[in-house]
Amino acid sequence: MNLRLKKAYARLKTENLDGLLVSLPANISYLTESISRDSYLLVSQKGNIYFTDSRYTEEARGFLKSNARLVQSNGSVFKCIAQACIKMGLKVLGFEERNLAFAEFSRLQQFSEGKFSLIPTHNLIEDLREVKDASEVAKIRKAVEITAETVKHIRKILAVGLKEVEVVGEIERFIRFSGASASAFDVIVASGPNSSKPHHLSGSRLIRNNEPVLIDMGVEYQGYKSDLTRVFFLGKIKVLVRQVYGVVLKAQEKAIKAIRPGVEMSVIDKTARDYIAKKGFGNKFEHNLGHGFGLEVHEGPHISGNEASLAKPGMIFTIEPGIYLPGEFGIRVEDMVLVTKKGCEVLSGAINK
Amino acid sequence: MNLRLKKAYARLKTENLDGLLVSLPANISYLTESISRDSYLLVSQKGNIYFTDSRYTEEARGFLKSNARLVQSNGSVFKCIAQACIKMGLKVLGFEERNLAFAEFSRLQQFSEGKFSLIPTHNLIEDLREVKDASEVAKIRKAVEITAETVKHIRKILAVGLKEVEVVGEIERFIRFSGASASAFDVIVASGPNSSKPHHLSGSRLIRNNEPVLIDMGVEYQGYKSDLTRVFFLGKIKVLVRQVYGVVLKAQEKAIKAIRPGVEMSVIDKTARDYIAKKGFGNKFEHNLGHGFGLEVHEGPHISGNEASLAKPGMIFTIEPGIYLPGEFGIRVEDMVLVTKKGCEVLSGAINK
Repeated sequence: MNLRLKKAYARLKTENLDGLLVSLPANISYLTESISRDSYLLVSQKGNIYFTDSRYTEEARGFLKSNARLVQSNGSVFKCIAQACIKMGLKVLGFEERNLAFAEFSRLQQFSEGKFSLIPTHNLIEDLREVKDASEVAKIRKAVEITAETVKHIRKILAVGLKEVEVVGEIERFIRFSGASASAFDVIVASGPNSSKPHHLSGSRLIRNNEPVLIDMGVEYQGYKSDLTRVFFLGKIKVLVRQVYGVVLKAQEKAIKAIRPGVEMSVIDKTARDYIAKKGFGNKFEHNLGHGFGLEVHEGPHISGNEASLAKPGMIFTIEPGIYLPGEFGIRVEDMVLVTKKGCEVLSGAINK
Repeated sequence: MNLRLKKAYARLKTENLDGLLVSLPANISYLTESISRDSYLLVSQKGNIYFTDSRYTEEARGFLKSNARLVQSNGSVFKCIAQACIKMGLKVLGFEERNLAFAEFSRLQQFSEGKFSLIPTHNLIEDLREVKDASEVAKIRKAVEITAETVKHIRKILAVGLKEVEVVGEIERFIRFSGASASAFDVIVASGPNSSKPHHLSGSRLIRNNEPVLIDMGVEYQGYKSDLTRVFFLGKIKVLVRQVYGVVLKAQEKAIKAIRPGVEMSVIDKTARDYIAKKGFGNKFEHNLGHGFGLEVHEGPHISGNEASLAKPGMIFTIEPGIYLPGEFGIRVEDMVLVTKKGCEVLSGAINK
């Protein structure tokens, strides 16, 4: 059994739980060191059980090893889970309150026949995932490397007259020929005024000269994600655009300099936010400064104004200040950093801005 | 206000609800006739409210029209929702039990301050979506058309030595240059023995001669999905493969012939399943025969052995029998059908098998 499951056992003990039903796919992937789909993982010192259906049993047999026993659920998976809990004599079962639908909770409660109680839990496994181990860092580095190659490729192919969604298509193709298994999320190609929407849905607008093209993309490599934003320019850059770009870049630089073990996340956020406010764009930067990523594209830690947690070596997160002028344009620059013993390493530092 | 919202009001009345909190993105998209992301829709005869955060308010303003009022949630969206319900004097609020996490339900209950009760509901809006209207059929036809072009393209580019994931990449590119906004789901390219896993995760295996290559793909066009599976062959087809392919094809043909208004879904499923069993592969076809699709790639109706509901004109679903021989190969053929007044139209009928 792997070290991660042992850490999970320790958490169960602290929380006085006999077992935990893990339902978030990324948590299951983490604990089984695999890529898990449509499954549930029951973690308990009395034995771990992986529940899935006939579509996935063949691949699950390949990766579970000694980490968990495989149960193929025919019919209701919650009936299977409840029966397993009863058979193992579990009395107090934790579940992931954000990743179990009300209907699933009800079903599980019904099948428990009053023989075990259900306790909502929050971040038990997510907390373990905040600091990456060496094998995770290696996979993320590889994802960043593919992202770097992709940015070089984008510079080559970006041209006036292409639709936003066609640029997305070319990125989707290129990453898979470069070793990625998929995009980490829907690629955002936001041209001209579309760039003022932080999560623009790439569409049929044509790329034009003399306007910013914001591209927010990431890849998935062996389950691990990357996340990067760059703004590209074709033709001339207007004065206001250049000015805003400079402010965003400087804000990011300041935030990155503030990162070291022990610093509060809110301080990192504030460093960038205060600078943007000082330059007169305070109300044009509404989202958080950054977020952790790994098996999910958004995970802990949160780099926001009200986050009191501290940076620790091995944490990996984005730093992505932005300024959005609705109807005009938006600029966001996003890099990926790894907290080191003394400061941080910008994993995407080699990718030109 | 649109007809769909009026139909939703009628359902609220039948269920004795003052309002319904819609949380499934596809249901919100359906009711607002838009592409909705990270939002909640409160439907009530006292007024409809669309809740989203600052990332999406600009696009939401563009599509909501007279269908709903926009509220930008700062902080907890559930607090905003609860406050709106209290302000409107709603006493009984339905919620979608499969699409609200236990934690969200708890939050909403807490913020309700006992001023309204929460009633779990099931399929209130999904039921409305089972029969497609003319505008939906038109969008699905366009998605099918792009899918047909893509299959032609696959025939051109499929070659020995390509990785499965590279074929995925080329499909992801091509569909966006053909008018799709995205894939409807992760494209499955399963070569040789990988084809025996019904939901294979496309990987780095190289396409070889003399083995089946199963490709299951779909596109999204203006929010509407398509879903198609074809098996391609390079080189010679082995005798057993050809035999199994023939059985699957015949099973599909028989099932399609059985489709007409008023026929029970289980009868359609049984038609294909019985034939496969008669040919000796009964235990090699474990999944359902088909499923509805539209705003989601899997939605009602379910074409399965225990589904007593009846086919109705305007329903659109897949028919996809398969035979899987673990470790050897699998064959699945999937088409999309529209139930008509007298029988059905195979929307993907022009795509060669």
